[in-house]
Amino acid sequence: MNKNINIAVIGLGQVGNYLYNELSIKKKEIENKTGKRIKIVAISAKNKNKKRKFKLNKKIFYTNPLKIFKEKKIDILFECIGLSDGISKKIVETALKRRINVITPNKALIAKHGDYLAKLAEKHHVNLEFEAAVAGGIPILRTIKEGLATNRINKIYGILNGTTNYILSEMENTQETFDKVLKKAQKLGYAEPGNPKLDLNGFDAFAKVRILSALAFNNQISKHKCIMEGIENIDLKDIKIASQLNLRIKLLGISEIINNHLFETVHPCLVSKNTYIGNVNGVMNAVITKGKPVGESVLQGEGAGPGPTSSSLLSDLLSILRGNIKYPFGIASNKRKFIKPFNNNDYSNSLYLRFEVKDKQGVLSSITNRLAKHKISVKRIIQTPDKKKNIATIVIITHKTTEINAKKCLSIFNKNKNILKFPTLIRLYN
Amino acid sequence: MNKNINIAVIGLGQVGNYLYNELSIKKKEIENKTGKRIKIVAISAKNKNKKRKFKLNKKIFYTNPLKIFKEKKIDILFECIGLSDGISKKIVETALKRRINVITPNKALIAKHGDYLAKLAEKHHVNLEFEAAVAGGIPILRTIKEGLATNRINKIYGILNGTTNYILSEMENTQETFDKVLKKAQKLGYAEPGNPKLDLNGFDAFAKVRILSALAFNNQISKHKCIMEGIENIDLKDIKIASQLNLRIKLLGISEIINNHLFETVHPCLVSKNTYIGNVNGVMNAVITKGKPVGESVLQGEGAGPGPTSSSLLSDLLSILRGNIKYPFGIASNKRKFIKPFNNNDYSNSLYLRFEVKDKQGVLSSITNRLAKHKISVKRIIQTPDKKKNIATIVIITHKTTEINAKKCLSIFNKNKNILKFPTLIRLYN
Repeated sequence: MNKNINIAVIGLGQVGNYLYNELSIKKKEIENKTGKRIKIVAISAKNKNKKRKFKLNKKIFYTNPLKIFKEKKIDILFECIGLSDGISKKIVETALKRRINVITPNKALIAKHGDYLAKLAEKHHVNLEFEAAVAGGIPILRTIKEGLATNRINKIYGILNGTTNYILSEMENTQETFDKVLKKAQKLGYAEPGNPKLDLNGFDAFAKVRILSALAFNNQISKHKCIMEGIENIDLKDIKIASQLNLRIKLLGISEIINNHLFETVHPCLVSKNTYIGNVNGVMNAVITKGKPVGESVLQGEGAGPGPTSSSLLSDLLSILRGNIKYPFGIASNKRKFIKPFNNNDYSNSLYLRFEVKDKQGVLSSITNRLAKHKISVKRIIQTPDKKKNIATIVIITHKTTEINAKKCLSIFNKNKNILKFPTLIRLYN
Repeated sequence: MNKNINIAVIGLGQVGNYLYNELSIKKKEIENKTGKRIKIVAISAKNKNKKRKFKLNKKIFYTNPLKIFKEKKIDILFECIGLSDGISKKIVETALKRRINVITPNKALIAKHGDYLAKLAEKHHVNLEFEAAVAGGIPILRTIKEGLATNRINKIYGILNGTTNYILSEMENTQETFDKVLKKAQKLGYAEPGNPKLDLNGFDAFAKVRILSALAFNNQISKHKCIMEGIENIDLKDIKIASQLNLRIKLLGISEIINNHLFETVHPCLVSKNTYIGNVNGVMNAVITKGKPVGESVLQGEGAGPGPTSSSLLSDLLSILRGNIKYPFGIASNKRKFIKPFNNNDYSNSLYLRFEVKDKQGVLSSITNRLAKHKISVKRIIQTPDKKKNIATIVIITHKTTEINAKKCLSIFNKNKNILKFPTLIRLYN
């Protein structure tokens, strides 16, 4: 690599624009740390004249990013558009094939096409770095690839989505409904104003889980259909009841090796208020790694926003400027294995079940009989009648049972006229 | 660097022996990750026949480590003896001069001679890595040098010594005295059986603070005399009173830029039980970094023991096998600056003061008058009489005051015959 490094930034939304500014400010510092002199020689976005927080050099602006490859010599390209396919994929592909190093915070792209793109990068002897794709400012990928490189990791889990964690925390703190708090989150810029669905339904966290397990277990990015649930159905009532039980609801992403099989999931969990993970609140992210010989390590930090994301993008830049070519997933693509998926049906947990029922004799026993029939034993029952409306809330905490058993057991409650809606199920974290 | 890498391990205590075994087991994995084939070609310790946990290859054993340089071609040397001077320094110096990469967990050596040794490494174009010197298995140095590389860090602090954290947690949990718990810690291998002094008096944590601030602020390792206090004078009584106040005592290492001056310290702190740091218990270490743009990041993990230490030593090994030569402190030695030390006298905190007094009229007012004279305002007073003995314990929580002011104020209590011993002072963490 030459001393002078040409850089292109593609996509000038919140992240791209912030990054552009950071690169301009920190030129000298980067030279001190790496001996390389960086220069932004091309930037690209759809709209040249859109109002942005930081001023751009319009002389190097391209409306069509693909034109840059023909007109400029680029050493390192930042892809900050964020689509899983389309122009994002096209740009990254083209860059790698032209031996241009690529840095991206695009988790959707990496979770979907990471294996293919990594092979492409290896074939053309360039770097593909994506630290910012998982947990914003927390250098978790670097930590797995380098800091914990020779540990045998068997589990990695955590709070991987700041938006949903903010919403759950805020519902507990203010006792406001999901819809109200979601609107607040959108106002504050924590949730997408147009379509927050990918945060809320667990998709965003799940893309991160897939990337984390690829790194932690040296496996190819899994394609298996997994249990993925978001927080859209979490009711303020559940948060209140959880709190009385000294529990808190968190959307956890979990990746684990169980009997040599890979298990990945994202779903809301009830965790004790006394645990570490139960106290990671607001927009914070946290990732917990269990490995040998290192034991349990925790990384916590701000999970979103242009500042933390930009911090990770620059750490990727420095890694490229300092080092040799590295494997995008820590080892060569042909050494990455396929780990058989764990059968989701066998996933087992204690369950929190909330029934809304008519306050009539025999209803509770019809529920407990059904549970008994499926050998689901009950740890705790809390029944709260609403005498005025003649209804009652029954919360049951069960001992451990498998997914398939719980599903079979609960299926019947669709048809029971004394049960006003299908029961709410939240898993307890072990 | 060739494909075949010769390794020497010097020092075969708990850490060195564990490392030797890990290197042997993980040879293939290291080759997969780096393309390099490692071979341990020399090991050294004082006693060849001492009983060790893992079996050694005695054919490559040297009693005199310096002989290795003459007889073997070494690429990477692990120094695991652990002295700040003497043979440890001699080996590292010799290795670097002979263009041998060095990896060491030796915080005493780095805190004392790190600047000199880094220059030596740079001059001879080799690596000097010391991830394991700070916070065991937590890859904090790599995170500062790489993950957070372009952030402007203004504060880094945390629990840096597992031994003292274990003792304080255990005293609180079991309500046993310092001496009893220390003995238990020695039995469990958490504290040195012979001389635990360097852990208990804060020296060990302080060496780590010096290394952390050199990395976080790009300064030369400071030589300034700082406030360094250990936990030897923490009484079970203080732990009990703290608990009643919803506080917990933690030995914190703190490094901070205050008005462009460097402030470094290690001392016990009272922290709220509701804070993150207040819940890092047992042998755990935690490091909190405040930077821009990343915000607050937390790293937590097991701080001691051969497993975590070995994890960090191997991460250094992989970094060397994968990359180019890196600056030991992240930037070139001649770019590291001298930051003027902050005046310790101006350090200011709320204080917890415990007085043991004769239970006589006028004693409390003599104390409060003295505080008033030095303009130290009182936030809270708790007086607990022991009627039988005719004595009383007075705990005063003050508003913020400077070190020098507190010192002057308290000095008089040496001479007051109604005050049975010099008051205990513990700073509250802001």
